[in-house]
Amino acid sequence: ESVGHEKKTMSDITLDQFEFTRVLNERSGSKWIAIEAKHVDQKAVIILEKMAFNESNVKQILKDTDQSSDLRLDFQNDIYGNYLAFPRSELNGIKTTIIYPATDRHIHKHLRQEFAVVLETSLLYEEVTQPHIESQSQQLSLQWVHNILDHKSETERIVCDVEDPEIGFVLLPDMKWDGIAVESLYLVAISRKAGIRSLRDLNETHLPLLNNIQTKGCEAIEKKYGVTRDQLRIYIHYQPSYYHFHIHFTALANEETGFVERIHLLDTVINNITVCKDYYQKSSLLFPIKTNDPLFKKFADKQVTN
Amino acid sequence: ESVGHEKKTMSDITLDQFEFTRVLNERSGSKWIAIEAKHVDQKAVIILEKMAFNESNVKQILKDTDQSSDLRLDFQNDIYGNYLAFPRSELNGIKTTIIYPATDRHIHKHLRQEFAVVLETSLLYEEVTQPHIESQSQQLSLQWVHNILDHKSETERIVCDVEDPEIGFVLLPDMKWDGIAVESLYLVAISRKAGIRSLRDLNETHLPLLNNIQTKGCEAIEKKYGVTRDQLRIYIHYQPSYYHFHIHFTALANEETGFVERIHLLDTVINNITVCKDYYQKSSLLFPIKTNDPLFKKFADKQVTN
Repeated sequence: ESVGHEKKTMSDITLDQFEFTRVLNERSGSKWIAIEAKHVDQKAVIILEKMAFNESNVKQILKDTDQSSDLRLDFQNDIYGNYLAFPRSELNGIKTTIIYPATDRHIHKHLRQEFAVVLETSLLYEEVTQPHIESQSQQLSLQWVHNILDHKSETERIVCDVEDPEIGFVLLPDMKWDGIAVESLYLVAISRKAGIRSLRDLNETHLPLLNNIQTKGCEAIEKKYGVTRDQLRIYIHYQPSYYHFHIHFTALANEETGFVERIHLLDTVINNITVCKDYYQKSSLLFPIKTNDPLFKKFADKQVTN
Repeated sequence: ESVGHEKKTMSDITLDQFEFTRVLNERSGSKWIAIEAKHVDQKAVIILEKMAFNESNVKQILKDTDQSSDLRLDFQNDIYGNYLAFPRSELNGIKTTIIYPATDRHIHKHLRQEFAVVLETSLLYEEVTQPHIESQSQQLSLQWVHNILDHKSETERIVCDVEDPEIGFVLLPDMKWDGIAVESLYLVAISRKAGIRSLRDLNETHLPLLNNIQTKGCEAIEKKYGVTRDQLRIYIHYQPSYYHFHIHFTALANEETGFVERIHLLDTVINNITVCKDYYQKSSLLFPIKTNDPLFKKFADKQVTN
């Protein structure tokens, strides 16, 4: 049986039996990398991630006197010294996942998507983004949004429901949240008012809607989860993932925010419209986009990528 | 002279000369830890962060046959094998910062804190934040900034230097970056113009400075590191960690941004001042703050926390 055979070989495997092919993806902030490699004519995906520190591990690193290389000075300024340290191997492990033999599907799944930032002027919004969104709107059904608003789906998940057609909304836990751990709290407020596709459509007529979602949403979250407003991150995505107006509520401590460029804090949005009522019609807005997204190509064709 | 003396001892220092006191803070996702330690009756803050992987490093790890421990099987399921790997020390460095001797202030700065978000109106800035910053300015020396600008320290690290007193700046790698892995690229541009304490002081007279730092900074980074502008995140912190104007340049892929609330993208700042020349004097700005920061208490006393 081939699976059984692989199991046996894999417990005897060493890293030097793999030949490096290419880097598939890396997240330097997490000290994580995925590579494609080869072993006996079959492909492998190897994922490496440095181990996190903990108290006992750090104590061992400090106590260890058998450090031939120890600290290598990089540079020093006043009381701040910067070094590289090289503790003994055993104190500095790497979490390693080997997918072997890997199919092309495994490899593709781990391959990085390239992103770029574009600066969308108001003119580019009108000439490129808006027509693009309209051409896509046939393909991306918003039926699921209407099912929620009309109480046909997910009714039992609703945390707060305000019926008013102008300033009303439905607040419910985001699909990515387990609904329990308040440290990773994540809810979404979906506006009842139709026709607000994105941030670009907001003006001073929407201030009552924005303020109502902020106030009532925070009240409902504090009541149900005990998390107060100063512990929340309340924001709008641009570009949004669907073009029916909605606002995200997450725990301030939740670091899983994705690209900073996509996040527009609700307080800032309210401030901007208050300072300048047509702020979102005349401003240049940055956003991140996959370089293989057709919209990115349309921006590039205008030779106006940031 | 005591500073000169410390400088000499620090280049001979080894980790085992420090006695572990306690963990001050840790970020397991980033494989980062800050501890308090002791050496010859003086306190130290030691910050450890595992190095990110890169292609050449991973190739070396795979090729290295002198791996006494190599792969230790954790568990296996079908084609997925999970291991711990222990490459040779030299292939697995730890970025180490030692602040020595450290004052209680340094230790406090690195101690894990609870955060809250406050909404600072222009009035609160004038009545609370500005007087607070001025009262602090005596305690937090900016000597190290002047050392850089005057070419007394870190001169060999400078990536770009524009002399002009109005629109000039010095660009150099941030202390948090190893200077190598472009995926975690992080540089800082320090303005030569004095007197811009923060975002709050920016107005239309600073547009030439902002545009110059953006343009020349991006050119220098592309030339030296091959990273183009659409792959960069360029931003200003509010509140900043020191009140001499500076701009952060990081790789777009670098997820280590800290609180979203603190980040003001340079393109957005330029847009805001263009849309409304006194935007930063009249706007309400959100920022995250440690709940044991004296400034937070001053906001709370005004009963105006967000």
